[in-house]
Parts: sequence; structure tokens; C-alpha cells
Amino acid sequence: MEYSHSDTDLSKQPIGYWSWAAHKAVITRTRTALAEIGTTQPQWWVLAQVARADTPKTRTEVARILQGYAATLQDELWAERHADVSDEEYLITLKVLQRFIHNTGGRAWHH
Amino acid sequence: MEYSHSDTDLSKQPIGYWSWAAHKAVITRTRTALAEIGTTQPQWWVLAQVARADTPKTRTEVARILQGYAATLQDELWAERHADVSDEEYLITLKVLQRFIHNTGGRAWHH
Repeated sequence: MEYSHSDTDLSKQPIGYWSWAAHKAVITRTRTALAEIGTTQPQWWVLAQVARADTPKTRTEVARILQGYAATLQDELWAERHADVSDEEYLITLKVLQRFIHNTGGRAWHH
Repeated sequence: MEYSHSDTDLSKQPIGYWSWAAHKAVITRTRTALAEIGTTQPQWWVLAQVARADTPKTRTEVARILQGYAATLQDELWAERHADVSDEEYLITLKVLQRFIHNTGGRAWHH
């Protein structure tokens, strides 16, 4: 992937901006995907499951199908955004972000 | 520093939340420090410079003093939040954040 700057210049970029840009991109993708689940896809998917069933499905069974669908989607979104990011790099990233929070006096996980 | 989770659990934390939390902590600290510059400290500091000067200072000279003061503050804030974050870790962090932007379809640096 092509980054915005050379390594030397990238190191001088501010975390305030890039943490915001990453947050925005990630939640926009998630919200778009969840909006699809909330509107079009699951109705069709549940209808197909119900129509295909040998015995009628209860409300609880249908709810479980939807929960499973949402969980699968979350796993897919996670895998999508973590492509080419190693677990080691991700751990470093979260630790660095939490260190910035610590160093700037924020206590995000204490309230 | 104490992190929010063990390494194993931290790796499962969502970037959507932690990028937001880091952004918020960093800009809050920066804004607070800049608000101080905008209200109390620089007036005193410039007055002290002007009062101490052998020859009267021009408007341009005073503006330059203020610019220097703001630049120094930005350097101090950078050093403060980067405490115990190596350049190598910071570079990895920015690359991972940009990869998340790329992987979720965002194009933060192309517009």
C-alpha cells in the first residue's frame, strides 16, 4: 500500500489528525454495513431461511438467525480492515494510542 | 504504563473506539494549552519582553515573539505526548492507521 508520506516525513505527522481520520473511515464503513443489515439484506435472508425451512420457525429462532448474521458481519468487517496488519503491529498501535491518552492526561478507560 | 487490557485481550479491542479516544485526548490537551496561550500567558510574556527591552519593540518584532512562543509550545506538546513512544513504534502506528483507512475505503489524504 502507498502511504501518505515517506517514512521520514510520516514520522512528523500529527497523531491528532490521523487518529481522527482512521476513526472516521472505520466507523463510516461499519455504519454503512450495519445500515444495509438494518434495511435490505436481512429481511431477504431471513425470508429465504423461513421459506426454505421444513418446519415453521419461531420468533426466537428468527432472532437467533439475525444475531448470527450480525456477528458474522462484524467478523467480516474486522477481517476486512485488518488485512495486511499483523497482530504484533496492531498491538503496538493500540499501546501507542493508549500511551498518547496517558501522556495527554486523558483517562479513557477509567471512566 | 498500565494498559487497559492484557496483550491478548488488547489485541481484540476495536480500533474504532481507541482511535477516537486518542484523538479526543490529544486535541483536548492541545486546545487547553493553546487556550492558555490565547488568554493569559503570552500577554504577560510579551509584556515582560517589551518592558525588559533596551530599545522599543515594533509590532513585527512582537508578532515574531508570539510565533516563536507558539512554535515552542507545539514542540513541548509533541514531546509530552510522545514520551516513551519510540520513533519506530510511532511509524508503525501511523502506517497501521493509514492501512485501516485504506482497508475501509477511506481516502483521507486524497482529498
